[in-house]
Amino acid sequence: MNITLIEQVRQINPLVHTITNLVVANDSANGLLAIGASPFMSNTVREVAEIQTFNHALVLNMGTINDEQLEAMLLAGKAANQNNKPVVIDPVGAGATQYRKQVIQELLEEIKPTLIRGNAGELASLANVAWQAKGVDAGVGSADVQSIAEIVARKYECLVFISGETDIMTNGSKTYLNHHGTPHFTSMTGSGCLLSCVCGAYLGVLDDPSADELLDAIIVAGTLYSLAGQLAAKDFNDRQIGTFRKNLLDQLSVIDAQTLRAFNREWSEHHE
Amino acid sequence: MNITLIEQVRQINPLVHTITNLVVANDSANGLLAIGASPFMSNTVREVAEIQTFNHALVLNMGTINDEQLEAMLLAGKAANQNNKPVVIDPVGAGATQYRKQVIQELLEEIKPTLIRGNAGELASLANVAWQAKGVDAGVGSADVQSIAEIVARKYECLVFISGETDIMTNGSKTYLNHHGTPHFTSMTGSGCLLSCVCGAYLGVLDDPSADELLDAIIVAGTLYSLAGQLAAKDFNDRQIGTFRKNLLDQLSVIDAQTLRAFNREWSEHHE
Amino acid sequence: MNITLIEQVRQINPLVHTITNLVVANDSANGLLAIGASPFMSNTVREVAEIQTFNHALVLNMGTINDEQLEAMLLAGKAANQNNKPVVIDPVGAGATQYRKQVIQELLEEIKPTLIRGNAGELASLANVAWQAKGVDAGVGSADVQSIAEIVARKYECLVFISGETDIMTNGSKTYLNHHGTPHFTSMTGSGCLLSCVCGAYLGVLDDPSADELLDAIIVAGTLYSLAGQLAAKDFNDRQIGTFRKNLLDQLSVIDAQTLRAFNREWSEHHE
Repeated sequence: MNITLIEQVRQINPLVHTITNLVVANDSANGLLAIGASPFMSNTVREVAEIQTFNHALVLNMGTINDEQLEAMLLAGKAANQNNKPVVIDPVGAGATQYRKQVIQELLEEIKPTLIRGNAGELASLANVAWQAKGVDAGVGSADVQSIAEIVARKYECLVFISGETDIMTNGSKTYLNHHGTPHFTSMTGSGCLLSCVCGAYLGVLDDPSADELLDAIIVAGTLYSLAGQLAAKDFNDRQIGTFRKNLLDQLSVIDAQTLRAFNREWSEHHE
Repeated sequence: MNITLIEQVRQINPLVHTITNLVVANDSANGLLAIGASPFMSNTVREVAEIQTFNHALVLNMGTINDEQLEAMLLAGKAANQNNKPVVIDPVGAGATQYRKQVIQELLEEIKPTLIRGNAGELASLANVAWQAKGVDAGVGSADVQSIAEIVARKYECLVFISGETDIMTNGSKTYLNHHGTPHFTSMTGSGCLLSCVCGAYLGVLDDPSADELLDAIIVAGTLYSLAGQLAAKDFNDRQIGTFRKNLLDQLSVIDAQTLRAFNREWSEHHE
Repeated sequence: MNITLIEQVRQINPLVHTITNLVVANDSANGLLAIGASPFMSNTVREVAEIQTFNHALVLNMGTINDEQLEAMLLAGKAANQNNKPVVIDPVGAGATQYRKQVIQELLEEIKPTLIRGNAGELASLANVAWQAKGVDAGVGSADVQSIAEIVARKYECLVFISGETDIMTNGSKTYLNHHGTPHFTSMTGSGCLLSCVCGAYLGVLDDPSADELLDAIIVAGTLYSLAGQLAAKDFNDRQIGTFRKNLLDQLSVIDAQTLRAFNREWSEHHE
């Protein structure tokens, strides 16, 4: 794992253009600043294509999608593809309504994603696997989540990151599991949305990356994020959303390569 | 008071569809997660009717209303009525402008609310009582607030919850007062909006409720909320909005039936 | 410096109508409440003109501008001018895209601002000075920032406030520098947007002000804000966005005239 990416993100300060939902925009912007990136949150069709000429990455999050925002996403996504900027798609609530099923289908027909990052229910919907999702929450299903991730990765020839108790990161042929999630993430709205943005920032600093380097970038991003979650929750046992939210932004601000390296070594020794 | 509703909400995990303003959406979503509910914050006409087929409750908040959002609210509200899902209307700034007066009138003509939850100024406007509101804040007036609540409840045949120094909860014939508010609520934007969402979650878990059970659900919700506010503010005397906001989400996450029962007993002994 | 303005704002409780971006709306509203003002965050063309008849100030922030919001800004701004209400324009990302260049030009052609408040990159764009901005962040340039501020103030016959390491406040003929910024402001999204709102509140309580009183109002606002930032950051050395954000709202809630007077005296003795 190329842990020095943490420092590269802080040095390069990638501009991450994020078209996202109105619930999480603030936390996503602050989280991007915390890891050393620059957020640009424009939603308007009038400028989203131009932004792809000077940004480092594009993140599309359909949490409060409507037709106008969809139009902006399509313009931005196509321009990002043309300009070789990485595109992260976060298919929030992908299977929850007929409209969202149409939206995610149209996005994936028109835009080539670098990464699809969602929860198990959302990715099950993309894989056409039976799953009982609940609105925008993950829900439950009997399918093997790792298989779902790999199916979707091969279908769309992209990276897939399914976050949950165990994080699954795959490019369809290689798969990495991270067992160090914290249940607190599910008690904070937008924790997954911010993870998508963090992945965008880490993909955005790569220079002509190989397939392995792309996968590695989201592994580093995911490991950083799960460590930040663990450290944010370490002083209390209950859910305490307010404190967790504050602590998560704090931890994302201060974790450096040395801290991440130490924890990664410890996790590898004890758990795998 | 059926305090076990607290546990029922955590077990049933009701999906609360909320069409709300862009200022408070994040706190409302996190607050719903804190009490054990699932927020779904869609605003788009393309899916809001469908959502009423699988949600537990609908909350309509007109804090940053515009014509497009009004259309979504009408579609959602009518569908919720058809599907027998409880509808909470939060008439933010109802009397502040001509436009808002028209909006709330149209909402109440087209949708049958289960609960109207607002501050004294907003409800005075619905009761056509003279009141000096101030934008979206409560303002001051000489009318008797309890009478206003009961007038509106009888006029629209629904529950009314006026929050303030004293919270007033009524169905028009029975009225309950809670004197344990905290002035900190008025110093945090969206504290009332979140209370409306909490009421929605508590109404959403009832199964074919009687009139008394409906009133009781918002009494439990209001008592929980005022206790959370008191505990959130207990370590400081000043306003300190940042800390209060964090603490409020924490308290909503951790208060259980036992805690609420103990405080409710103490309040009953000492104050009523 | 008329430090008693702090108390006047808390007494008058000015209604600050803010048309702003979806990323920062919550922090801006809570920050306004913290200093004793009342936020009103309407974006809709249907009521923004009417609001100028009963508000104290208007703040226009183009952080997530689109054509519909621009229409609302133009209606609100012209009505504010007609009603002699102060108008603060925050030209977020003014030079970042062709669209934003057109928007700020149209706003400044149609609306007479009382104050333009932005970062160096945004004001350089208004002054037509070469500058390497980065999305909505300040970026870097070789031009003299004080000159930029004074050029723009004279060009638009208004106050200019450029925030940064050194805050610059000018009316084009008199200029005031404040060297007590905190680098933490750049690590929190919307810290500048909130400063614009605070300036709006302070301008909003003036009664038929002279040119000197106008300049003094934003000097008091800027000094309060930089002190709040310093006190918010005083317990930690790292960036810690979550804690800083909470502390900033706390400090804005509790700083009074006495505290500000003491710090202002100390700063004057030691640094100027």
